[in-house]
Amino acid sequence: LFVSAIIPAAGKGQRFGSRLNKQFIDLGGKPLLYYTLRQFQIADVINEIILVVPENWLPEMTILAEACQFSKITQIVAGGNERFQSVANGLAKIDRQSEIVVVHDGVRPFISTELIAKSVQAGIEYQAVALAVPVKDTIKVVQQGLVEKTLDRSVLWAIQTPQVFQAELLREAYARLSRPTVSITDDATLVEALGHPVKIIEGDYRNIKITSPDDYHLAEFYLSRKII
Amino acid sequence: LFVSAIIPAAGKGQRFGSRLNKQFIDLGGKPLLYYTLRQFQIADVINEIILVVPENWLPEMTILAEACQFSKITQIVAGGNERFQSVANGLAKIDRQSEIVVVHDGVRPFISTELIAKSVQAGIEYQAVALAVPVKDTIKVVQQGLVEKTLDRSVLWAIQTPQVFQAELLREAYARLSRPTVSITDDATLVEALGHPVKIIEGDYRNIKITSPDDYHLAEFYLSRKII
Repeated sequence: LFVSAIIPAAGKGQRFGSRLNKQFIDLGGKPLLYYTLRQFQIADVINEIILVVPENWLPEMTILAEACQFSKITQIVAGGNERFQSVANGLAKIDRQSEIVVVHDGVRPFISTELIAKSVQAGIEYQAVALAVPVKDTIKVVQQGLVEKTLDRSVLWAIQTPQVFQAELLREAYARLSRPTVSITDDATLVEALGHPVKIIEGDYRNIKITSPDDYHLAEFYLSRKII
Repeated sequence: LFVSAIIPAAGKGQRFGSRLNKQFIDLGGKPLLYYTLRQFQIADVINEIILVVPENWLPEMTILAEACQFSKITQIVAGGNERFQSVANGLAKIDRQSEIVVVHDGVRPFISTELIAKSVQAGIEYQAVALAVPVKDTIKVVQQGLVEKTLDRSVLWAIQTPQVFQAELLREAYARLSRPTVSITDDATLVEALGHPVKIIEGDYRNIKITSPDDYHLAEFYLSRKII
Protein backbone atom coordinates (compact mmCIF):
# COMPACT_ATOMS: atom_id res chain seq x y z
CA LEU A 1 0.00 0.00 0.00
CA PHE A 2 1.54 3.29 -1.14
CA VAL A 3 1.03 6.27 1.16
CA SER A 4 1.70 9.88 0.08
CA ALA A 5 1.98 12.80 2.47
CA ILE A 6 1.11 16.31 1.28
CA ILE A 7 2.63 19.02 3.47
CA PRO A 8 1.11 22.43 2.68
CA ALA A 9 3.54 25.15 3.80
CA ALA A 10 2.71 27.97 1.43
CA GLY A 11 1.02 30.31 3.92
CA LYS A 12 1.74 34.00 3.86
CA GLY A 13 1.80 34.21 7.64
CA GLN A 14 -0.15 37.45 7.93
CA ARG A 15 -0.95 36.67 11.56
CA PHE A 16 2.70 36.28 12.50
CA GLY A 17 3.81 39.89 12.40
CA SER A 18 7.13 38.89 10.87
CA ARG A 19 8.42 39.53 7.39
CA LEU A 20 9.52 35.92 7.23
CA ASN A 21 6.81 33.32 6.54
CA LYS A 22 6.14 31.45 9.77
CA GLN A 23 6.96 28.03 8.29
CA PHE A 24 10.54 29.15 7.71
CA ILE A 25 11.09 30.94 11.00
CA ASP A 26 14.13 29.77 12.95
CA LEU A 27 13.54 27.27 15.73
CA GLY A 28 16.73 26.08 17.40
CA GLY A 29 18.82 26.84 14.33
CA LYS A 30 16.53 25.15 11.81
CA PRO A 31 13.41 26.32 9.99
CA LEU A 32 10.20 25.27 11.72
CA LEU A 33 9.24 23.25 8.64
CA TYR A 34 12.34 21.08 9.13
CA TYR A 35 10.85 19.45 12.25
CA THR A 36 7.59 18.66 10.50
CA LEU A 37 9.34 17.14 7.49
CA ARG A 38 11.66 15.12 9.71
CA GLN A 39 8.70 13.41 11.39
CA PHE A 40 7.28 12.33 8.03
CA GLN A 41 10.74 11.30 6.80
CA ILE A 42 11.20 8.94 9.76
CA ALA A 43 7.60 7.65 9.89
CA ASP A 44 7.69 4.09 8.48
CA VAL A 45 4.16 4.31 7.08
CA ILE A 46 4.98 7.20 4.72
CA ASN A 47 6.30 6.40 1.22
CA GLU A 48 6.60 9.85 -0.30
CA ILE A 49 6.31 13.49 0.71
CA ILE A 50 4.92 16.22 -1.56
CA LEU A 51 6.01 19.54 -0.14
CA VAL A 52 4.05 22.67 -1.09
CA VAL A 53 5.80 26.01 -0.53
CA PRO A 54 5.59 29.59 -1.86
CA GLU A 55 6.98 29.81 -5.38
CA ASN A 56 9.94 31.98 -4.38
CA TRP A 57 11.06 29.36 -1.84
CA LEU A 58 11.34 26.48 -4.31
CA PRO A 59 15.16 26.74 -4.80
CA GLU A 60 15.92 27.04 -1.05
CA MET A 61 13.65 24.12 -0.18
CA THR A 62 15.33 21.92 -2.77
CA ILE A 63 18.66 22.64 -1.10
CA LEU A 64 17.23 22.02 2.37
CA ALA A 65 15.65 18.70 1.35
CA GLU A 66 19.00 17.50 -0.02
CA ALA A 67 21.08 18.82 2.86
CA CYS A 68 18.79 17.10 5.39
CA GLN A 69 18.66 13.88 3.37
CA PHE A 70 14.89 13.99 3.33
CA SER A 71 14.86 11.27 0.72
CA LYS A 72 11.09 10.78 0.79
CA ILE A 73 10.44 14.26 -0.66
CA THR A 74 9.67 13.40 -4.29
CA GLN A 75 8.15 16.72 -5.31
CA ILE A 76 8.43 20.30 -4.18
CA VAL A 77 5.62 22.31 -5.75
CA ALA A 78 4.42 25.91 -5.61
CA GLY A 79 1.32 26.64 -3.52
CA GLY A 80 -1.70 28.80 -4.21
CA ASN A 81 -3.19 31.79 -2.46
CA GLU A 82 -5.42 29.65 -0.28
CA ARG A 83 -4.65 26.51 1.67
CA PHE A 84 -7.04 24.37 -0.38
CA GLN A 85 -5.28 25.47 -3.59
CA SER A 86 -1.95 24.39 -2.15
CA VAL A 87 -3.32 20.96 -1.21
CA ALA A 88 -4.88 20.65 -4.68
CA ASN A 89 -1.50 21.45 -6.26
CA GLY A 90 0.12 18.75 -4.12
CA LEU A 91 -2.64 16.25 -4.85
CA ALA A 92 -2.00 16.65 -8.58
CA LYS A 93 1.57 15.46 -8.05
CA ILE A 94 1.20 12.33 -5.92
CA ASP A 95 2.57 9.07 -7.25
CA ARG A 96 0.28 7.17 -9.65
CA GLN A 97 0.25 4.13 -7.39
CA SER A 98 -0.67 6.14 -4.28
CA GLU A 99 -3.79 4.82 -2.52
CA ILE A 100 -3.72 6.78 0.71
CA VAL A 101 -3.07 10.52 1.08
CA VAL A 102 -2.05 12.13 4.36
CA VAL A 103 -2.41 15.92 4.58
CA HIS A 104 -0.48 17.61 7.38
CA ASP A 105 0.08 21.31 8.07
CA GLY A 106 3.70 22.34 7.61
CA VAL A 107 3.46 24.43 10.79
CA ARG A 108 2.50 21.53 13.09
CA PRO A 109 6.00 20.31 13.98
CA PHE A 110 5.04 18.41 17.16
CA ILE A 111 3.31 15.52 15.45
CA SER A 112 4.57 12.15 16.69
CA THR A 113 5.36 9.27 14.37
CA GLU A 114 2.95 7.19 16.50
CA LEU A 115 0.07 9.53 15.65
CA ILE A 116 1.08 9.55 11.97
CA ALA A 117 0.95 5.73 11.99
CA LYS A 118 -2.34 5.65 13.90
CA SER A 119 -3.91 8.14 11.46
CA VAL A 120 -2.79 6.15 8.42
CA GLN A 121 -4.12 2.89 9.90
CA ALA A 122 -7.47 4.55 10.56
CA GLY A 123 -7.43 6.06 7.06
CA ILE A 124 -7.06 2.58 5.55
CA GLU A 125 -10.03 1.40 7.61
CA TYR A 126 -12.38 4.42 7.27
CA GLN A 127 -11.25 6.14 4.00
CA ALA A 128 -11.50 9.56 5.69
CA VAL A 129 -9.97 10.44 9.05
CA ALA A 130 -9.14 13.62 10.94
CA LEU A 131 -7.06 13.93 14.08
CA ALA A 132 -8.74 16.08 16.75
CA VAL A 133 -8.84 16.83 20.47
CA PRO A 134 -11.82 17.53 22.74
CA VAL A 135 -12.48 21.27 23.09
CA LYS A 136 -11.50 22.55 26.55
CA ASP A 137 -12.88 26.08 26.27
CA THR A 138 -16.49 27.14 26.61
CA ILE A 139 -17.55 28.06 23.07
CA LYS A 140 -20.30 30.55 22.32
CA VAL A 141 -21.87 31.69 19.07
CA VAL A 142 -21.52 35.48 18.96
CA GLN A 143 -23.43 37.81 16.63
CA GLN A 144 -22.76 41.55 16.61
CA GLY A 145 -20.88 41.35 19.89
CA LEU A 146 -23.66 39.58 21.80
CA VAL A 147 -23.93 35.92 22.79
CA GLU A 148 -26.45 34.08 20.63
CA LYS A 149 -25.98 30.74 22.37
CA THR A 150 -23.56 28.59 24.34
CA LEU A 151 -22.69 25.33 22.61
CA ASP A 152 -22.71 21.91 24.28
CA ARG A 153 -18.98 21.45 24.70
CA SER A 154 -19.18 17.68 25.19
CA VAL A 155 -19.64 17.09 21.43
CA LEU A 156 -17.11 19.66 20.17
CA TRP A 157 -13.69 18.66 18.86
CA ALA A 158 -10.86 20.94 17.72
CA ILE A 159 -9.59 19.61 14.44
CA GLN A 160 -5.90 19.02 13.74
CA THR A 161 -3.89 17.30 11.07
CA PRO A 162 -2.88 14.69 9.88
CA GLN A 163 -6.05 14.10 7.94
CA VAL A 164 -5.95 10.89 5.94
CA PHE A 165 -8.01 9.96 2.90
CA GLN A 166 -8.36 7.30 0.30
CA ALA A 167 -6.68 9.03 -2.66
CA GLU A 168 -9.67 8.65 -5.00
CA LEU A 169 -12.05 10.06 -2.40
CA LEU A 170 -9.92 13.16 -1.84
CA ARG A 171 -9.57 13.65 -5.62
CA GLU A 172 -13.34 13.47 -5.97
CA ALA A 173 -13.79 15.97 -3.11
CA TYR A 174 -11.38 18.42 -4.75
CA ALA A 175 -12.90 17.87 -8.19
CA ARG A 176 -16.31 18.96 -6.88
CA LEU A 177 -14.84 22.07 -5.30
CA SER A 178 -15.37 24.96 -7.67
CA ARG A 179 -15.46 28.32 -5.97
CA PRO A 180 -16.01 27.82 -2.26
CA THR A 181 -18.26 30.48 -0.73
CA VAL A 182 -17.13 29.86 2.82
CA SER A 183 -13.48 29.60 3.72
CA ILE A 184 -12.32 25.97 3.71
CA THR A 185 -10.22 25.46 6.81
CA ASP A 186 -9.60 21.73 6.47
CA ASP A 187 -9.78 18.94 3.90
CA ALA A 188 -12.23 16.77 5.83
CA THR A 189 -14.91 19.44 5.26
CA LEU A 190 -14.69 18.78 1.51
CA VAL A 191 -15.14 15.06 2.03
CA GLU A 192 -18.05 15.71 4.41
CA ALA A 193 -19.67 17.73 1.60
CA LEU A 194 -19.69 14.53 -0.49
CA GLY A 195 -21.73 12.87 2.25
CA HIS A 196 -18.88 10.54 3.15
CA PRO A 197 -18.42 9.84 6.89
CA VAL A 198 -15.26 11.22 8.49
CA LYS A 199 -13.78 9.33 11.43
CA ILE A 200 -12.26 11.29 14.32
CA ILE A 201 -9.07 9.97 15.91
CA GLU A 202 -7.89 11.44 19.20
CA GLY A 203 -4.78 13.57 18.71
CA ASP A 204 -2.58 15.43 21.15
CA TYR A 205 -2.99 18.94 22.60
CA ARG A 206 0.73 19.43 21.96
CA ASN A 207 0.22 19.06 18.21
CA ILE A 208 -0.28 22.82 17.91
CA LYS A 209 -0.35 24.89 14.75
CA ILE A 210 2.24 27.65 14.93
CA THR A 211 0.36 30.72 13.73
CA SER A 212 1.25 33.45 16.22
CA PRO A 213 4.31 34.63 18.16
CA ASP A 214 2.82 33.04 21.33
CA ASP A 215 2.66 29.67 19.58
CA TYR A 216 6.26 30.18 18.56
CA HIS A 217 7.26 30.88 22.18
CA LEU A 218 5.68 27.59 23.20
CA ALA A 219 7.49 25.81 20.35
CA GLU A 220 10.80 27.29 21.53
CA PHE A 221 10.04 26.06 25.02
CA TYR A 222 9.22 22.53 23.84
CA LEU A 223 12.45 22.49 21.87
CA SER A 224 14.56 23.73 24.80
CA ARG A 225 13.14 20.91 26.91
CA LYS A 226 13.82 18.40 24.13
CA ILE A 227 10.10 17.61 24.00
CA ILE A 228 10.49 17.50 20.22
CA LEU B 1 -19.48 52.19 42.59
CA PHE B 2 -18.32 49.20 44.62
CA VAL B 3 -16.81 46.34 42.61
CA SER B 4 -16.27 42.84 44.08
CA ALA B 5 -14.08 40.19 42.47
CA ILE B 6 -14.82 36.51 43.12
CA ILE B 7 -11.82 34.27 42.42
CA PRO B 8 -12.84 30.60 42.34
CA ALA B 9 -9.76 28.46 43.01
CA ALA B 10 -11.29 25.39 44.59
CA GLY B 11 -10.70 22.96 41.71
CA LYS B 12 -9.48 19.45 42.38
CA GLY B 13 -7.14 19.54 39.39
CA GLN B 14 -7.94 16.01 38.19
CA ARG B 15 -6.53 16.85 34.75
CA PHE B 16 -3.21 17.96 36.14
CA GLY B 17 -1.71 14.62 37.07
CA SER B 18 -0.20 16.11 40.21
CA ARG B 19 -1.14 15.47 43.81
CA LEU B 20 -1.02 19.21 44.38
CA ASN B 21 -4.05 21.20 43.20
CA LYS B 22 -3.04 23.15 40.13
CA GLN B 23 -3.90 26.56 41.60
CA PHE B 24 -1.22 26.07 44.25
CA ILE B 25 1.49 24.62 42.02
CA ASP B 26 4.81 26.46 42.17
CA LEU B 27 5.53 28.99 39.45
CA GLY B 28 8.80 30.85 39.89
CA GLY B 29 8.77 30.28 43.66
CA LYS B 30 5.17 31.35 44.24
CA PRO B 31 1.85 29.51 43.93
CA LEU B 32 0.15 30.07 40.58
CA LEU B 33 -2.79 31.68 42.39
CA TYR B 34 -0.48 34.40 43.70
CA TYR B 35 -0.10 35.91 40.22
CA THR B 36 -3.85 35.99 39.66
CA LEU B 37 -4.52 37.60 43.04
CA ARG B 38 -1.78 40.15 42.49
CA GLN B 39 -3.43 41.41 39.31
CA PHE B 40 -6.73 41.99 41.12
CA GLN B 41 -4.94 43.55 44.09
CA ILE B 42 -3.25 46.15 41.85
CA ALA B 43 -6.25 46.77 39.55
CA ASP B 44 -7.67 50.18 40.53
CA VAL B 45 -11.23 49.22 39.59
CA ILE B 46 -11.45 46.39 42.13
CA ASN B 47 -12.62 47.19 45.67
CA GLU B 48 -12.64 43.75 47.28
CA ILE B 49 -11.60 40.19 46.49
CA ILE B 50 -13.52 37.12 47.65
CA LEU B 51 -11.18 34.14 47.35
CA VAL B 52 -12.70 30.65 47.12
CA VAL B 53 -10.39 27.72 47.89
CA PRO B 54 -10.66 24.09 49.03
CA GLU B 55 -11.61 23.91 52.70
CA ASN B 56 -8.27 22.37 53.75
CA TRP B 57 -6.39 25.30 52.23
CA LEU B 58 -8.16 28.04 54.22
CA PRO B 59 -5.40 28.43 56.88
CA GLU B 60 -2.53 28.53 54.35
CA MET B 61 -4.35 31.04 52.15
CA THR B 62 -4.99 33.34 55.09
CA ILE B 63 -1.25 33.34 55.76
CA LEU B 64 -0.43 33.92 52.07
CA ALA B 65 -2.88 36.82 51.79
CA GLU B 66 -1.30 38.53 54.79
CA ALA B 67 2.29 37.80 53.76
CA CYS B 68 1.66 39.23 50.29
CA GLN B 69 -0.25 42.22 51.67
CA PHE B 70 -3.22 41.44 49.47
CA SER B 71 -5.29 43.94 51.41
CA LYS B 72 -8.29 43.73 49.10
CA ILE B 73 -9.01 40.12 50.09
CA THR B 74 -11.92 40.57 52.50
CA GLN B 75 -13.08 36.95 52.61
CA ILE B 76 -11.53 33.56 52.06
CA VAL B 77 -14.28 30.97 51.77
CA ALA B 78 -14.47 27.23 51.15
CA GLY B 79 -15.53 26.09 47.69
CA GLY B 80 -17.92 23.38 46.58
CA ASN B 81 -17.50 20.29 44.44
CA GLU B 82 -18.38 22.13 41.25
CA ARG B 83 -17.21 25.48 39.99
CA PHE B 84 -20.72 27.00 40.11
CA GLN B 85 -21.00 26.03 43.78
CA SER B 86 -17.72 27.80 44.52
CA VAL B 87 -18.89 30.96 42.76
CA ALA B 88 -22.22 30.77 44.64
CA ASN B 89 -20.34 30.49 47.94
CA GLY B 90 -18.31 33.57 47.00
CA LEU B 91 -21.39 35.49 45.84
CA ALA B 92 -23.01 34.95 49.24
CA LYS B 93 -20.10 36.81 50.86
CA ILE B 94 -19.72 39.96 48.76
CA ASP B 95 -20.04 43.32 50.45
CA ARG B 96 -23.63 44.58 50.90
CA GLN B 97 -22.88 47.74 48.92
CA SER B 98 -21.40 45.79 45.97
CA GLU B 99 -23.07 46.64 42.67
CA ILE B 100 -20.73 44.94 40.21
CA VAL B 101 -19.30 41.41 40.51
CA VAL B 102 -16.27 40.24 38.55
CA VAL B 103 -15.72 36.47 38.37
CA HIS B 104 -12.23 35.36 37.35
CA ASP B 105 -10.68 31.89 37.34
CA GLY B 106 -7.91 31.49 39.89
CA VAL B 107 -5.86 29.60 37.30
CA ARG B 108 -5.78 32.43 34.72
CA PRO B 109 -2.73 34.32 36.01
CA PHE B 110 -1.96 36.22 32.80
CA ILE B 111 -4.87 38.63 32.97
CA SER B 112 -3.78 42.24 32.52
CA THR B 113 -5.07 45.07 34.70
CA GLU B 114 -6.09 46.79 31.45
CA LEU B 115 -8.43 43.92 30.57
CA ILE B 116 -9.81 43.84 34.12
CA ALA B 117 -10.60 47.57 33.83
CA LYS B 118 -12.07 47.16 30.34
CA SER B 119 -14.29 44.28 31.52
CA VAL B 120 -15.57 46.24 34.51
CA GLN B 121 -16.35 49.29 32.37
CA ALA B 122 -18.28 47.09 29.94
CA GLY B 123 -20.03 45.39 32.87
CA ILE B 124 -21.28 48.76 34.10
CA GLU B 125 -22.61 49.51 30.63
CA TYR B 126 -24.09 46.10 29.69
CA GLN B 127 -24.81 44.40 33.08
CA ALA B 128 -23.38 41.12 31.76
CA VAL B 129 -20.04 40.76 30.01
CA ALA B 130 -17.68 37.92 29.15
CA LEU B 131 -14.14 38.19 27.87
CA ALA B 132 -13.48 35.96 24.85
CA VAL B 133 -11.22 35.44 21.83
CA PRO B 134 -12.10 34.35 18.29
CA VAL B 135 -11.70 30.58 17.83
CA LYS B 136 -8.65 29.72 15.69
CA ASP B 137 -9.24 25.96 15.32
CA THR B 138 -11.67 24.28 12.99
CA ILE B 139 -14.44 22.98 15.28
CA LYS B 140 -16.58 19.97 14.40
CA VAL B 141 -19.52 18.39 16.16
CA VAL B 142 -18.63 14.72 16.72
CA GLN B 143 -21.06 11.96 17.61
CA GLN B 144 -19.88 8.40 18.26
CA GLY B 145 -16.50 9.12 16.72
CA LEU B 146 -17.87 10.48 13.44
CA VAL B 147 -18.18 14.07 12.24
CA GLU B 148 -21.77 15.29 12.38
CA LYS B 149 -20.98 18.75 11.02
CA THR B 150 -18.31 21.42 10.72
CA LEU B 151 -19.25 24.68 12.42
CA ASP B 152 -18.91 28.13 10.88
CA ARG B 153 -15.82 29.30 12.71
CA SER B 154 -16.39 32.99 11.97
CA VAL B 155 -19.08 33.26 14.68
CA LEU B 156 -17.37 31.13 17.34
CA TRP B 157 -15.65 32.65 20.36
CA ALA B 158 -13.67 30.87 23.07
CA ILE B 159 -14.86 32.20 26.40
CA GLN B 160 -12.47 33.40 29.10
CA THR B 161 -12.78 35.28 32.35
CA PRO B 162 -13.18 37.94 33.75
CA GLN B 163 -16.93 37.82 33.41
CA VAL B 164 -18.62 40.86 34.90
CA PHE B 165 -22.21 41.19 36.08
CA GLN B 166 -24.52 43.56 37.82
CA ALA B 167 -24.63 41.97 41.30
CA GLU B 168 -28.42 41.64 41.39
CA LEU B 169 -28.50 39.99 37.97
CA LEU B 170 -25.90 37.38 38.95
CA ARG B 171 -27.77 36.70 42.23
CA GLU B 172 -30.98 36.17 40.27
CA ALA B 173 -29.18 33.82 37.85
CA TYR B 174 -27.78 31.74 40.71
CA ALA B 175 -31.13 31.77 42.56
CA ARG B 176 -32.81 30.16 39.54
CA LEU B 177 -30.15 27.49 39.29
CA SER B 178 -31.43 24.40 41.04
CA ARG B 179 -29.87 21.17 39.80
CA PRO B 180 -28.21 21.84 36.47
CA THR B 181 -28.59 18.95 34.04
CA VAL B 182 -25.70 20.00 31.85
CA SER B 183 -22.38 20.98 33.28
CA ILE B 184 -22.15 24.74 33.79
CA THR B 185 -18.75 25.84 32.52
CA ASP B 186 -19.16 29.60 32.94
CA ASP B 187 -21.35 32.13 34.74
CA ALA B 188 -22.53 33.93 31.62
CA THR B 189 -24.47 30.79 30.64
CA LEU B 190 -26.65 31.21 33.74
CA VAL B 191 -27.38 34.82 32.86
CA GLU B 192 -28.15 33.82 29.26
CA ALA B 193 -30.69 31.34 30.68
CA LEU B 194 -32.54 34.33 32.16
CA GLY B 195 -32.83 35.77 28.65
CA HIS B 196 -30.51 38.66 29.48
CA PRO B 197 -28.06 39.68 26.72
CA VAL B 198 -24.38 39.01 27.38
CA LYS B 199 -21.85 41.33 25.77
CA ILE B 200 -18.57 39.86 24.46
CA ILE B 201 -15.37 41.84 24.98
CA GLU B 202 -12.22 40.82 23.12
CA GLY B 203 -9.67 39.27 25.47
CA ASP B 204 -6.16 38.01 24.91
CA TYR B 205 -4.97 34.59 23.71
CA ARG B 206 -2.32 34.75 26.43
CA ASN B 207 -5.01 34.78 29.14
CA ILE B 208 -4.90 30.98 29.29
CA LYS B 209 -6.43 28.73 31.91
CA ILE B 210 -3.76 26.49 33.45
CA THR B 211 -5.39 23.08 33.48
CA SER B 212 -2.70 20.73 32.15
CA PRO B 213 1.07 20.25 32.45
CA ASP B 214 1.45 21.74 28.95
CA ASP B 215 -0.33 24.91 30.05
CA TYR B 216 2.01 24.99 33.02
CA HIS B 217 5.05 24.75 30.73
CA LEU B 218 3.79 27.76 28.81
CA ALA B 219 3.21 29.62 32.07
CA GLU B 220 6.78 28.86 33.17
CA PHE B 221 8.01 30.15 29.84
CA TYR B 222 6.01 33.39 30.11
CA LEU B 223 7.39 33.87 33.60
CA SER B 224 10.99 33.24 32.53
CA ARG B 225 10.60 35.90 29.86
CA LYS B 226 9.01 38.25 32.40
CA ILE B 227 5.90 38.38 30.25
CA ILE B 228 3.94 38.36 33.49
